[in-house]
Amino acid sequence: MAAPVALIQGASRGLGLEFCKHILKYKSPAAVLATCRNPDAAAELRGLAGQHSDRLTVFKLDVNLEEDIRAAAERVRDNFGRLDLLINSSAVLHPSGRGETSLRDVTAQGVISTLTTNAVGPLVMARYFAPLLQKGSGGFGRQPAEKTERHGGIIVNITAKVGSIGDNGLGGWYSYRMSKAALNMATRNIAIELGRSRPKVVCVSLHPGTVNTDLSRPYHKNVPKDKLFSTEHSVSCLMSIINTLSIEKTGKAYSWDGTELPW
Amino acid sequence: MAAPVALIQGASRGLGLEFCKHILKYKSPAAVLATCRNPDAAAELRGLAGQHSDRLTVFKLDVNLEEDIRAAAERVRDNFGRLDLLINSSAVLHPSGRGETSLRDVTAQGVISTLTTNAVGPLVMARYFAPLLQKGSGGFGRQPAEKTERHGGIIVNITAKVGSIGDNGLGGWYSYRMSKAALNMATRNIAIELGRSRPKVVCVSLHPGTVNTDLSRPYHKNVPKDKLFSTEHSVSCLMSIINTLSIEKTGKAYSWDGTELPW
Ligand SMILES: NC(=O)c1ccc[n+]([C@@H]2O[C@H](COP(=O)([O-])OP(=O)(O)OC[C@H]3O[C@@H](n4cnc5c(N)ncnc54)[C@H](OP(=O)(O)O)[C@@H]3O)[C@@H](O)[C@H]2O)c1
Ligand SMILES: NC(=O)c1ccc[n+]([C@@H]2O[C@H](COP(=O)([O-])OP(=O)(O)OC[C@H]3O[C@@H](n4cnc5c(N)ncnc54)[C@H](OP(=O)(O)O)[C@@H]3O)[C@@H](O)[C@H]2O)c1
Repeated sequence: MAAPVALIQGASRGLGLEFCKHILKYKSPAAVLATCRNPDAAAELRGLAGQHSDRLTVFKLDVNLEEDIRAAAERVRDNFGRLDLLINSSAVLHPSGRGETSLRDVTAQGVISTLTTNAVGPLVMARYFAPLLQKGSGGFGRQPAEKTERHGGIIVNITAKVGSIGDNGLGGWYSYRMSKAALNMATRNIAIELGRSRPKVVCVSLHPGTVNTDLSRPYHKNVPKDKLFSTEHSVSCLMSIINTLSIEKTGKAYSWDGTELPW
Repeated sequence: MAAPVALIQGASRGLGLEFCKHILKYKSPAAVLATCRNPDAAAELRGLAGQHSDRLTVFKLDVNLEEDIRAAAERVRDNFGRLDLLINSSAVLHPSGRGETSLRDVTAQGVISTLTTNAVGPLVMARYFAPLLQKGSGGFGRQPAEKTERHGGIIVNITAKVGSIGDNGLGGWYSYRMSKAALNMATRNIAIELGRSRPKVVCVSLHPGTVNTDLSRPYHKNVPKDKLFSTEHSVSCLMSIINTLSIEKTGKAYSWDGTELPW
């Protein structure tokens, strides 16, 4: 069987970069396609590619540019003919770097920009990569005995607990919360549509916990030290979930500890 | 006590227009401010304004233009100094008039445009009208005995059952479903923030049922006749809910029959 192929979208920093490292280290011989909007500026990712030139390929993809996504899908089709795992990791908290603390901070442009990157981008990724994921070899997740229930590829959308409407007790962060709620709806819809294909494609939303990255940096001082995960810890928890995914678990949102998140 | 003031956003046709008629007929002496993006083209609304020149004012507001929203809020502030009810009724199914039946139909531009009108627009309305709703006289809804629990204004965001993530069993309509999920998150967030103010402002999402309007027209042939509501019936159900709203019910989504919708 050919080596599994994983594409990590938003791999320049943070959790996306860590997913690349993890798969290179623990999922040999899987190939990793790492995309980011500015490969020249992604020094650590390029260093990794230098060390693993046989398994890691970096290419440019701004998730806000449909043309980039289409071109990337064509490249993966030509080079691999299929995809086994797509992780949409890229996101912004808000163009300003800080979530809105109240309605007064809300601007149409800020909300639209956040929705575009965090919700529309991952959906458009699914739109162009679905045909390749349907040709996936089932190299990630866990396959059931029943042949008709087996999956080809898996789509993981990185969501956030603050994107759960029912769980929202604090308010604030309008743009980010709305974008993750919209992303969760995309997850559910993609899971339904691609759960009908043969082979099936699994799609879930995963919440990584509160993780020590640039995105959460402005808020680190409010997080108890044992609640602020390293990227290594978070990604290792998330990969444990991914390793057990099957069509039974599709269309849902899970937290880093495997518990289901409410919508 | 001064007459209650209601603003219906998206009043040129369909449910928005019907809300204006209903309030004029059954909520005398309430004043109605009806906004739409092109008053010159809204013949029926202008006819209504001719008949009710003392109570109905029409003005231009494209919910995609933050400048229009800001100007409208200033006008209401100058003329009334407060607002008791804001109904965000405007929406599109998709710029094409038809929801996506599969991922193949998804375009970034279509999703962004739908999210902008259906989710960002109502949020930006809340942002600019919140100060006026906080000065509302409690002219709509039901006031509890406890003085500290009384509300000034009410915000109603017209949502759709297909915007419930947990209830989604069919898939499709990516843009519209995502926009209503994002709108529901906005409702929840607004309810939390404005539930802390004094007086409080109530905010809910309401699902009107499947209603005989232009928005649903392409799908009428699939709807059993007794399930396709007239705008009169739908608005009369929704106004019954609005008439019983209090701070206890804020931050939730309700269907036309008063049952709570899952997120
Ligand atoms: N950190 C947390 O506590 C936390 C909690 C809950 C959920 N999450 C989620 O976890 C995921 C990863 O976030 P992180 O914490 O790793 O944040 P991060 O370190 O700030 O990384 C964000 C990544 O998104 C990329 N990105 C932003 N806009 C992009 C665009 N238009 N096209 C392509 N890539 C783009 C960035 O690329 P550039 O280098 O080019 O800017 C960067 O690689 C996100 O979905 C986030 O919402 C994080
Ligand atoms: N009909 C149903 O079966 C149904 C079911 C569930 C939910 N809903 C919801 O009910 C609400 C009302 O829809 P409807 O059925 O009455 O639809 P409709 O008859 O098609 O009316 C839509 C209204 O939205 C306005 N609009 C669209 N874009 C706008 C913009 N950028 N700025 C300002 N106004 C804008 C339209 O104005 P123009 O005249 O200028 O185009 C029109 O007045 C919507 O939120 C819809 O999602 C409807």
